[in-house]
Amino acid sequence: MKVSEVLHMNGGIGDSSYASNSLIQRKVIFMTKAIAEEAVSDVYCSMFPKTLCIADLGCSSGPNTLLVVTQTVKTVNKIRKKLCRQSSPEFQIYLNDLPGNDFNSIFRSLPRVQEELKEEIGSEFGPCFFNGVPGSFYSRLCPTSTLHFVHSSYSLMWLSQVPKGVEMNKENIYLASTSPPSVINAYYEQFQKDFSMFLKCRSEELVSGGRMVLTILGRKSEDPTSKECCYIWDLLAMALKQMVSEGLIEEEKLHSFCIPQYTPSPLELKAEVEKERSFSINRLEASEINWAACSNKLYSSDDSFKDDGYNVAKCMRSVAEPLLVHHFGESIMDKLFHKYGEILSDCMSKEETKFVNLAISMTKRE
Amino acid sequence: MKVSEVLHMNGGIGDSSYASNSLIQRKVIFMTKAIAEEAVSDVYCSMFPKTLCIADLGCSSGPNTLLVVTQTVKTVNKIRKKLCRQSSPEFQIYLNDLPGNDFNSIFRSLPRVQEELKEEIGSEFGPCFFNGVPGSFYSRLCPTSTLHFVHSSYSLMWLSQVPKGVEMNKENIYLASTSPPSVINAYYEQFQKDFSMFLKCRSEELVSGGRMVLTILGRKSEDPTSKECCYIWDLLAMALKQMVSEGLIEEEKLHSFCIPQYTPSPLELKAEVEKERSFSINRLEASEINWAACSNKLYSSDDSFKDDGYNVAKCMRSVAEPLLVHHFGESIMDKLFHKYGEILSDCMSKEETKFVNLAISMTKRE
Repeated sequence: MKVSEVLHMNGGIGDSSYASNSLIQRKVIFMTKAIAEEAVSDVYCSMFPKTLCIADLGCSSGPNTLLVVTQTVKTVNKIRKKLCRQSSPEFQIYLNDLPGNDFNSIFRSLPRVQEELKEEIGSEFGPCFFNGVPGSFYSRLCPTSTLHFVHSSYSLMWLSQVPKGVEMNKENIYLASTSPPSVINAYYEQFQKDFSMFLKCRSEELVSGGRMVLTILGRKSEDPTSKECCYIWDLLAMALKQMVSEGLIEEEKLHSFCIPQYTPSPLELKAEVEKERSFSINRLEASEINWAACSNKLYSSDDSFKDDGYNVAKCMRSVAEPLLVHHFGESIMDKLFHKYGEILSDCMSKEETKFVNLAISMTKRE
Repeated sequence: MKVSEVLHMNGGIGDSSYASNSLIQRKVIFMTKAIAEEAVSDVYCSMFPKTLCIADLGCSSGPNTLLVVTQTVKTVNKIRKKLCRQSSPEFQIYLNDLPGNDFNSIFRSLPRVQEELKEEIGSEFGPCFFNGVPGSFYSRLCPTSTLHFVHSSYSLMWLSQVPKGVEMNKENIYLASTSPPSVINAYYEQFQKDFSMFLKCRSEELVSGGRMVLTILGRKSEDPTSKECCYIWDLLAMALKQMVSEGLIEEEKLHSFCIPQYTPSPLELKAEVEKERSFSINRLEASEINWAACSNKLYSSDDSFKDDGYNVAKCMRSVAEPLLVHHFGESIMDKLFHKYGEILSDCMSKEETKFVNLAISMTKRE
């Protein structure tokens, strides 16, 4: 089964899981805000298009969905005023995610968002046309040479499918120090295939000189089994193994499960961009964010919220639950994530744990 | 409250109501198929655009939602083959309805529809990019000069709001022979205001030479209170009045309810188009369809389905229920539509009853 078919079957993700996940995404968006602003102001000032076409790929549906595109509109407006240009461009905004995403809830929030934008920007506000674009970003989504600015945050580490031959990975659910080389290769090849397809599709859709800013969960090390990217899944595998030993999960079931994700290094990203040749890289930056960023203690109302480990578990639940439910069934989820929370708490009390983000800014070549 | 805010609060519309309504819409789409084909082939052959942009306004969500746009794609492909043109245009397809429409269900059906199109058309199939565009078609929906073909079926008789001053209409819920002239004027003025706004917005969005085909519930007579357009609502008012006399509805509640619809005559449509000046009219045709077209006896499984009156009531329920629930509350709906079905059965057994459709085909002037 394709990942696209599973990823949005998310029945039963609790609101607090969602809140933890959206919190970290929000922080990442703010961390890369300057890079996105620079890119969009460059493309606006070099073209002054009548209609500025913006795509947010893997937009999801939640409190952050419209954050980047509204920021972009505000950025353009600020520059326009600075340059004393009278008329605003029109904004054509494409919000993309898989067909199972909850577009209805995005669309129902739009009238309010448009009102707020109008109020903030005032009468010279260029009309904003919002479009929902259902589909996988590993395929074409928009007509040829139409987009000026493409953005994607925290989506591109998801592969289009589980790599072939991962049964050899045994009780690991992601890459780990005990993963055989064939599994490491299978993961890397799937990443190369998917990411180069992504670049090819976007290169066809972007106008010459168009800009693309991607934020992706990655790693700093060149070792794809390094702790910085694998530890978080290692600990989930540990919880699953405990449940195998308790007879709650069959061992073979665990052996046939793998997370369809790949967290590349800056060099791996760069290599794919250079191989594909349509883009020149303007920036490629790595940054770190504490696992504990999933928590916002100010907002906590229940006790469990006060424990970072459980908050990280909630955050990961919102990400991984559809895949886990599809493979193991609904019934073990509460127990699994409770165990995972315990394990995370324990480890976070002993060592500093961080996610690595890569942000890459590119220009479509002539 | 705006009609846009009420129209899609459709909680509790039964599936069979939906089926009856979609049946009549399907018939109307087939009745106007030739007009739409002519328009789209004209625009394709006069421009051969690299990307053909098509909008379906008021697309709803149901079995007919993608009918017109897939027909359009097939039509273009047929002409392309006839002309021995090798490469297909790309299709950018905008599916518009109010933000409360169920876009999720449209989007989830798209992968299947795209597969079917690919299979039917074969390898030279130009890519089709589907977009959901939430918003009222009485406002701008797309960037300036981008659309080649605009289509709308059975949506434009809905006004943007209930006309002002309709309390004078007393126990009528739509225009009727007993409506005072001030009410008739209020309805007509609201129609003029809305339809001219619609034309203005579309004229900005269409390219020069772009085409627009609209099908709308209308009338042949110049009398806006003529039976051909008012009778169907008259009979619903009759059912409501019965419920007033039974003490189930307060009289004042009935007096403050009006259906925000206007069914224009061909001359009234023409007058607005000529006044607005952006479009030249290619065709303007009136046709009739029996109320009984809501029934498809072949598909009937339960007894009530065998009765035309009840089927028309179901059809009207899918159209009017959100407005009625908003005004009168949920609890009386079953009883109301049962009564309405009885009244409709009785009248349909005694006389021939028809809806009037107007189809108008226009070209955006240079």
